Amino acid sequence: MTLIDGKAIAAQVKREIAAEVSEIVARGGKRPHLAAILVGHDGGSETYVASKVKACEECGFRSTLVRYDVDVTEDELLAKVRELNADADVDGFIVQLPLPKHISEQKVIETIDYRKDVDGFHPINVGRLSIGLPCYVSATPNGIMELLRRYQIETQGKKCVVLGRSNIVGKPMAMLMMQKAYPGDATVTVCHSRSKTLVQECREADIIIAALGQPGFVKADMVKEGAVVIDVGTTRVPDATRKSGFRLSGDVLFDEVAPKCSFITPVPGGVGPMTIVSLMKNTLLAGKKAIYK
Amino acid sequence: MTLIDGKAIAAQVKREIAAEVSEIVARGGKRPHLAAILVGHDGGSETYVASKVKACEECGFRSTLVRYDVDVTEDELLAKVRELNADADVDGFIVQLPLPKHISEQKVIETIDYRKDVDGFHPINVGRLSIGLPCYVSATPNGIMELLRRYQIETQGKKCVVLGRSNIVGKPMAMLMMQKAYPGDATVTVCHSRSKTLVQECREADIIIAALGQPGFVKADMVKEGAVVIDVGTTRVPDATRKSGFRLSGDVLFDEVAPKCSFITPVPGGVGPMTIVSLMKNTLLAGKKAIYK
Repeated sequence: MTLIDGKAIAAQVKREIAAEVSEIVARGGKRPHLAAILVGHDGGSETYVASKVKACEECGFRSTLVRYDVDVTEDELLAKVRELNADADVDGFIVQLPLPKHISEQKVIETIDYRKDVDGFHPINVGRLSIGLPCYVSATPNGIMELLRRYQIETQGKKCVVLGRSNIVGKPMAMLMMQKAYPGDATVTVCHSRSKTLVQECREADIIIAALGQPGFVKADMVKEGAVVIDVGTTRVPDATRKSGFRLSGDVLFDEVAPKCSFITPVPGGVGPMTIVSLMKNTLLAGKKAIYK
Repeated sequence: MTLIDGKAIAAQVKREIAAEVSEIVARGGKRPHLAAILVGHDGGSETYVASKVKACEECGFRSTLVRYDVDVTEDELLAKVRELNADADVDGFIVQLPLPKHISEQKVIETIDYRKDVDGFHPINVGRLSIGLPCYVSATPNGIMELLRRYQIETQGKKCVVLGRSNIVGKPMAMLMMQKAYPGDATVTVCHSRSKTLVQECREADIIIAALGQPGFVKADMVKEGAVVIDVGTTRVPDATRKSGFRLSGDVLFDEVAPKCSFITPVPGGVGPMTIVSLMKNTLLAGKKAIYK
């Protein structure tokens, strides 16, 4: 069993990005600039945004954090989005989700210029991903692709089961894994809460990508000997022994599943660190205008 | 076994559309107008476009056919696309594929205003389909959804195997069948030429949607008793007994598969007629500005 070290790969990718940024700047090129909009003070969102700002520093990017109170109006937020669309110095930006209920997330996403949509949530980027065209791939699926690539995990013709059909993980993950490319070219099955054959699908899977957000959902008897298991789950579970009062729990019952696997990601330290690194990769692409002019 | 009568359903849908168009026009509304661009004289394309023009008449639409010789330049074609984008009288239009090799199909597709893209090929429509937002759904998958709906075929939680991963059938079909909606909410598996478990997947499937373009590929021993089989294949096979010199062959070995099925589509007369009707439905939506303003 090989433990996939997302933390180490993430650090490696950030070093590679930082080296490229140094070169770009040394040649007189522009330092990539990521902006982030954060609304309110949700604990999870604060943590994510802080990690993104820190990752920008490690990569040598410029970063800007725009904060709004939780009662910001949709119009104010959309006006800021349009301002960032028009700001030539900002290469890419994100609006940290979730947003307060009085603001339409979809409207915000569609207002972002797709050429600066480094989260890859705009319909144009989602559509291009499906078609197989260059685009900003959403961060978590992109991070998983990078792990498969770096660990040279075979995917062609393999049965890959994706648990969960969210717009930011399950669906784009499925689309990536079915493309004629490496990683990809797999037989892809998407399971969800309504799936009657979920357990059987998992038992037959060469690769399981679990993104249900249900702690410990994937058990040993659902996993084939030698399977690759990627755990996207990061549910906060109360834990009095931690200073924070919680710990992150994956969708996979790691201790009993791991011995059966050829490769498995831990939680934390697996997919999580790669998600932020994927955003950095998209920001670098945006800075270089590598996908859109 | 119930034979799904695509021809009858298509006729029914066209009558419904025609009735709605009559009402719209009677109220002083605008008659929907579909334009089609046809390049060259490919036999298949000529037939399809002629059928589309005829369907427009049946639905009470205005239609315009724009023809180019096979040596039209990409620039000329793109100029016409932009002209149709700007023409307020044209509600929707299509460029019949395939195009000659010297013209980039993708460039043409992306030049079409997504609000007039009644083929549903533009990345914005593809992305919105994936996200689950209102959009122009590409014709063949949309026609299959209509058949499932009209025959009230259960899909929730069912195992649906899609054979083929093309951008115009396999991928959007898979996306539709996994959405939380009816028809849909299925466990979806996409198989293709590289799939090692294809036969097993089919044997376990409650619904098989075959879109490989390989005549007679799906045989009786690949189909579970009581399965729903939708045959998208329409390969032209030489046949000296026909006046045309060919007959259309589906991906399913109908005679041996049909007795095992709860529902099955024939070829011809199954999915084929629904494809053109779906284009008509999109044109009606475009005429009513029901999806985009």
